[in-house]
Amino acid sequence: MTDLSPTKSDNFTFGLWTVGWQARDPFGDATRAPVDPVETVHRLAELGAAGVTFHDDDLIPFGSDDGRRDDHIKRFRAALDETGLTVPMATTNLFTHPVFKDGAFTSNNRDVRRYALRKVMRNMDLAAELGASTYVFWGGREGSETDAAKDIRAALDRYREGIDLLAQYSIDRGYGLRFAIQPKPNEPRGDILLPTVGHALAFIAGLEHHEMVGVNPEVGHEQMSNLNFVHAIAQALWAGKLFHIDLNGQHGPKFDQDLVFGHGDLLSAFFLVDLLENGGPGGAPAYDGPRHFDYKPMRTEDMTGVWSSAAANMRTYLLLRERAAAFRADPEVQEALATSRVAELAVPTLADGESYDALLADTSAYESFDADAVAGAGYGFGRLDQLAVEHVLGAR
Amino acid sequence: MTDLSPTKSDNFTFGLWTVGWQARDPFGDATRAPVDPVETVHRLAELGAAGVTFHDDDLIPFGSDDGRRDDHIKRFRAALDETGLTVPMATTNLFTHPVFKDGAFTSNNRDVRRYALRKVMRNMDLAAELGASTYVFWGGREGSETDAAKDIRAALDRYREGIDLLAQYSIDRGYGLRFAIQPKPNEPRGDILLPTVGHALAFIAGLEHHEMVGVNPEVGHEQMSNLNFVHAIAQALWAGKLFHIDLNGQHGPKFDQDLVFGHGDLLSAFFLVDLLENGGPGGAPAYDGPRHFDYKPMRTEDMTGVWSSAAANMRTYLLLRERAAAFRADPEVQEALATSRVAELAVPTLADGESYDALLADTSAYESFDADAVAGAGYGFGRLDQLAVEHVLGAR
Amino acid sequence: MTDLSPTKSDNFTFGLWTVGWQARDPFGDATRAPVDPVETVHRLAELGAAGVTFHDDDLIPFGSDDGRRDDHIKRFRAALDETGLTVPMATTNLFTHPVFKDGAFTSNNRDVRRYALRKVMRNMDLAAELGASTYVFWGGREGSETDAAKDIRAALDRYREGIDLLAQYSIDRGYGLRFAIQPKPNEPRGDILLPTVGHALAFIAGLEHHEMVGVNPEVGHEQMSNLNFVHAIAQALWAGKLFHIDLNGQHGPKFDQDLVFGHGDLLSAFFLVDLLENGGPGGAPAYDGPRHFDYKPMRTEDMTGVWSSAAANMRTYLLLRERAAAFRADPEVQEALATSRVAELAVPTLADGESYDALLADTSAYESFDADAVAGAGYGFGRLDQLAVEHVLGAR
Amino acid sequence: MTDLSPTKSDNFTFGLWTVGWQARDPFGDATRAPVDPVETVHRLAELGAAGVTFHDDDLIPFGSDDGRRDDHIKRFRAALDETGLTVPMATTNLFTHPVFKDGAFTSNNRDVRRYALRKVMRNMDLAAELGASTYVFWGGREGSETDAAKDIRAALDRYREGIDLLAQYSIDRGYGLRFAIQPKPNEPRGDILLPTVGHALAFIAGLEHHEMVGVNPEVGHEQMSNLNFVHAIAQALWAGKLFHIDLNGQHGPKFDQDLVFGHGDLLSAFFLVDLLENGGPGGAPAYDGPRHFDYKPMRTEDMTGVWSSAAANMRTYLLLRERAAAFRADPEVQEALATSRVAELAVPTLADGESYDALLADTSAYESFDADAVAGAGYGFGRLDQLAVEHVLGAR
Repeated sequence: MTDLSPTKSDNFTFGLWTVGWQARDPFGDATRAPVDPVETVHRLAELGAAGVTFHDDDLIPFGSDDGRRDDHIKRFRAALDETGLTVPMATTNLFTHPVFKDGAFTSNNRDVRRYALRKVMRNMDLAAELGASTYVFWGGREGSETDAAKDIRAALDRYREGIDLLAQYSIDRGYGLRFAIQPKPNEPRGDILLPTVGHALAFIAGLEHHEMVGVNPEVGHEQMSNLNFVHAIAQALWAGKLFHIDLNGQHGPKFDQDLVFGHGDLLSAFFLVDLLENGGPGGAPAYDGPRHFDYKPMRTEDMTGVWSSAAANMRTYLLLRERAAAFRADPEVQEALATSRVAELAVPTLADGESYDALLADTSAYESFDADAVAGAGYGFGRLDQLAVEHVLGAR
Repeated sequence: MTDLSPTKSDNFTFGLWTVGWQARDPFGDATRAPVDPVETVHRLAELGAAGVTFHDDDLIPFGSDDGRRDDHIKRFRAALDETGLTVPMATTNLFTHPVFKDGAFTSNNRDVRRYALRKVMRNMDLAAELGASTYVFWGGREGSETDAAKDIRAALDRYREGIDLLAQYSIDRGYGLRFAIQPKPNEPRGDILLPTVGHALAFIAGLEHHEMVGVNPEVGHEQMSNLNFVHAIAQALWAGKLFHIDLNGQHGPKFDQDLVFGHGDLLSAFFLVDLLENGGPGGAPAYDGPRHFDYKPMRTEDMTGVWSSAAANMRTYLLLRERAAAFRADPEVQEALATSRVAELAVPTLADGESYDALLADTSAYESFDADAVAGAGYGFGRLDQLAVEHVLGAR
Repeated sequence: MTDLSPTKSDNFTFGLWTVGWQARDPFGDATRAPVDPVETVHRLAELGAAGVTFHDDDLIPFGSDDGRRDDHIKRFRAALDETGLTVPMATTNLFTHPVFKDGAFTSNNRDVRRYALRKVMRNMDLAAELGASTYVFWGGREGSETDAAKDIRAALDRYREGIDLLAQYSIDRGYGLRFAIQPKPNEPRGDILLPTVGHALAFIAGLEHHEMVGVNPEVGHEQMSNLNFVHAIAQALWAGKLFHIDLNGQHGPKFDQDLVFGHGDLLSAFFLVDLLENGGPGGAPAYDGPRHFDYKPMRTEDMTGVWSSAAANMRTYLLLRERAAAFRADPEVQEALATSRVAELAVPTLADGESYDALLADTSAYESFDADAVAGAGYGFGRLDQLAVEHVLGAR
Repeated sequence: MTDLSPTKSDNFTFGLWTVGWQARDPFGDATRAPVDPVETVHRLAELGAAGVTFHDDDLIPFGSDDGRRDDHIKRFRAALDETGLTVPMATTNLFTHPVFKDGAFTSNNRDVRRYALRKVMRNMDLAAELGASTYVFWGGREGSETDAAKDIRAALDRYREGIDLLAQYSIDRGYGLRFAIQPKPNEPRGDILLPTVGHALAFIAGLEHHEMVGVNPEVGHEQMSNLNFVHAIAQALWAGKLFHIDLNGQHGPKFDQDLVFGHGDLLSAFFLVDLLENGGPGGAPAYDGPRHFDYKPMRTEDMTGVWSSAAANMRTYLLLRERAAAFRADPEVQEALATSRVAELAVPTLADGESYDALLADTSAYESFDADAVAGAGYGFGRLDQLAVEHVLGAR
């Protein structure tokens, strides 16, 4: 077995809010004390992470005055300097304070919308100062519980207005940020706007600065709708829009579990790592950004369990990377892929230069096409699936 | 109560395959005999429908020779002429024959892809001849059961290649068709490409002739992922892409039920009709195309039940239209909407001509903004929800 | 329309924790101040409720000393006396304090299990003192996030041990309490023991004092698994085990929404009320206990919205009761029920005194049974469904 | 690695209808020819299976006369004799023919119910003749699409009547059969009676001969409701009712996929095998019956793929059995289980002979119990989960 100790080149990153989660849930009080972000930075560095990410309020408690704010930033920056950890991504907390109870960019209350934009701009300044290249937007409160209460088309107008304005701000200030929108179908709102990777990609296509806006898909969020996360990532890559990714685990349509990566649908996690690292059947890495873990250590755990869960995320990723490499290298897999004609799908349906007139004139395509005969051939997909399962099990 | 007999101006349409479904399901044989399309046309006309739609194989059995094909078309056309029913939409069956078992436009087998394009072109010719303005693409077999078997990015390339070619074909032949892509998350494939309205809209944005391609969302398909269908329709409208709609009923994430419209999530059906007819809070119709029912009469029913279920779809729609009109006209609703600031969301967040610099300079927006005070005000959404429920119940 | 003002004879009850919910959710802080239980009692009485229910910690903050405890009880009792409200049900909070993070009766830590039993006994004393007849057990923390961590069979042994002991305690003290177990599939635990009405009924069958233990099903909990709540209630009634019921609303498999009754699946709410009030097709009330609302006023609402949401629950129930009565009284419904042979299902399959030998000898049952002919008859279920929808819509 | 060739002692069995599925689905025609049951017996024997199971109509086409019937049985029996395969289980097809469109034991039509009982008795005779010890009841058509159409309590009465009568028949004839009821939440009916393992167990408790009736849970059926299958199996074992088991794979709440075992939720499959083989933490096999695969080879496959998918089921099971054995033998796992107090849950909460009075007198249990201190300790469940994942991955 190759060494599975994570290093900075593996580019693993964690949110301050992940290991820092105090484990307050809808039915229970916190089971853990707050964690000092400075400690988090040091611990993550020891574990082999490359970077740390944050919401404004993770680092600087809501309502801090400027002096306190500067102190928090100074201490954090010192920890980064000591450890060499970077801050590749930052984001804004637009959901905890009750003022955002009907949303931020799409609150029915225009004053809240204005306040939200200001809160974001303030933290974009800090993100740029700390060297972040990606700014994430998770609109967890943008939504509704009843269709009577929200004019969705107006909401999308306001959402666009907000993102357009902030993009312009980043451009004008020379921050060089790329934006990444994070979809989620529900929780905390009954229904959230831009519920899936698809809806977010579609929204982005209508933005003024669409070229600087992509998505930040989260494993569990797409799986809360029982959608295939690997397919969603592939579509985001196809659109050139996979700007960031949130790795974790989930057991299907229920509340947002934020389990350790791989501790949910393990087969899907394998295919995800294969896609990111090997490009699926393509053979080349499909994504070179941070492998960002957005998970919650279970509420039953103490701080020892918290730090070991952080390590577990990275170790599982590395194990799956190893399994995926072996899968791609296995001659039997390669033969099975050929039998299944997987690469043939990359061949255009029309020949080079062929027009539809030529296709219409090709009697072998239709008039003499023997549908029953072609239908009789098996694709061999079951064998491929079994080979993948056996590689996941480390059995080949 | 106003008259609830449907008329052609209501623009209700049905697929031949709906009332014609023989009720074969994964565990059972057909319970009904085939229905002659000519009878369907006459019956639907009697019931007050405006139009009928079809897959090629609904009208002309797969493998018919040209002579038989012409006979089928001739008889069908005669029935249309007699009844005045139109054919506003047509589509292609790319899923029943085993040759499509791995998809049509995205089959790993290139010969199948070529055959599929030919099959579509042939039926587009007929659709245009019969006066259809919309051509629907439901890629029910485009997908996979295991991520090992399908290169999703290549599949999306082929999907785009297919749609681009067919769009060009429609343009060149002067058919004037608009294309409408119909999303579905799964069934018959384990995972289907373009699983939601969002994913389909995102895909369309990357097409060569994207301006002539929109979506054909189906109530049950979006609800199979437990997504809010009304939100999806609003986003499609926002993108200018609601080219067609398939109305039916579903009870959440399970097999595709295709129930009568309203016989699933009745509250959502009410808000859908309100959006289509009244534009939600906007006040103007948001959609003027066919109200197309894509449902299946239950397998327990005989032909009497089939025709009465067709009538039930229309009657439920009309009742909900009446309820939605009363909801919008109710002064208490209007007052509640104002209290909930629903219309305020249509007011841009920045004042006319206001820049982000001006926003940054507005201390009322941030520095002196009293978040706690603003947070204390209630939105009154519960009252709106209850008013809607009471209107649905016909209790106001 | 009949008067829809609730009265005590309607037997509507509310938990202190419902209107008292401060609207803290997994991503947000409280949006409302605590409500004094005394105020709740007065307000609910004014709205027409008959009773109020509570967890120990709702009434007496966790950790209160005996003196403070007595004060809280005394004030509460005075409010009950003033208003005439009863306390038909009480329950124990075994989920908020971190000590219960791995469960109460089934915590891996035996000391926690002992503490939990003591906490329940203490509140059973109070429940009996306040005249409660039902004691509810919701084991929200009894479960796990990983199958490696919990020996489920041992957990069920401990669950049974706990319930058996507490049943004996109630019997010996002469409290006359009936126990009602409340199922839920997940949240706050990844998977909760006794996830559905079925699993709870099965568990009860193995208890020592099974005759005094039934279920307390909650609309949203069963719908979180996309199961048919009306079927579940019917099975509980069939087993003689519907000891209490929690009414609210939910939009399918997602986090526990606790919406106002009817503000989720409205058709199912109609059929539920019809079952409770009219016994479905039977014609007699199937349940005579409290109609208990276990819901959460939306987080967007202020206290005005809280109290109006409480009223909305009752009003929706009464409207549905009215619709259900009209449905049963409608001659066309009665004729449709007869056509659908609904009552025929109450006729035993074997004639009175008929043995299987007689059935085997009845050639009309098999040898000369014409399956194809019988299969051809339609059941008319679609018509019944449409009649129900129209009654819900108040359109008949 | 130990030898992974299946042998008869592994007790793997398959239904005739699994490899024999012709791959007709709701949207597509058959892609494979029928398979002769005799060939199936020989093929399965070669692959290492121990037994084969069947529905009456799998072996003897519906409507065959007595002569044809005898021929089918004779040929089948000869194949069994040649191969040494056994028939441990049989069942009845009460779903394919249209006559069962509203159910069999619970059809609203009493004649259908009588016919269904006769059809079952006839096949029970054959099952006994072929040496089966288990008779399965999957009531796939027992259910409804609308709550208006079915009196659920009457349906449960009829269901009970049917099972009671058939149990008596088996007893009287000395067949020695045990009955196993197979739950499923929906498909082909909108909602099916006895939707989960829990509901079936509860129903069984009310049967006359309940001691001879257990459950036959299917992986995918419970996962269609997103319920934890391992928990369900543990509850069935706890009740002494795991009489048979159907192994396959499923990707959450959608149509019934019937994938190869392990090709869905792989982690859950591991924990299931661990429970069956090692009794979870207990250390002893929890189930000694057939490991029965009830799956469908994918529709894309030809017969080569069919037979290799049959082998894949067994191989995956054996690999997981190996992984589970290593998990239980790993000293680090044992230490982690101890840290997590997993075995402590098997210790009764009350000491031997301790009464509740003694518990009430134990001040350490309540009065001096330091809830905050106890709450502070972590359970170490995350470490256990990661150890399991690493064993599944073959990484330890």
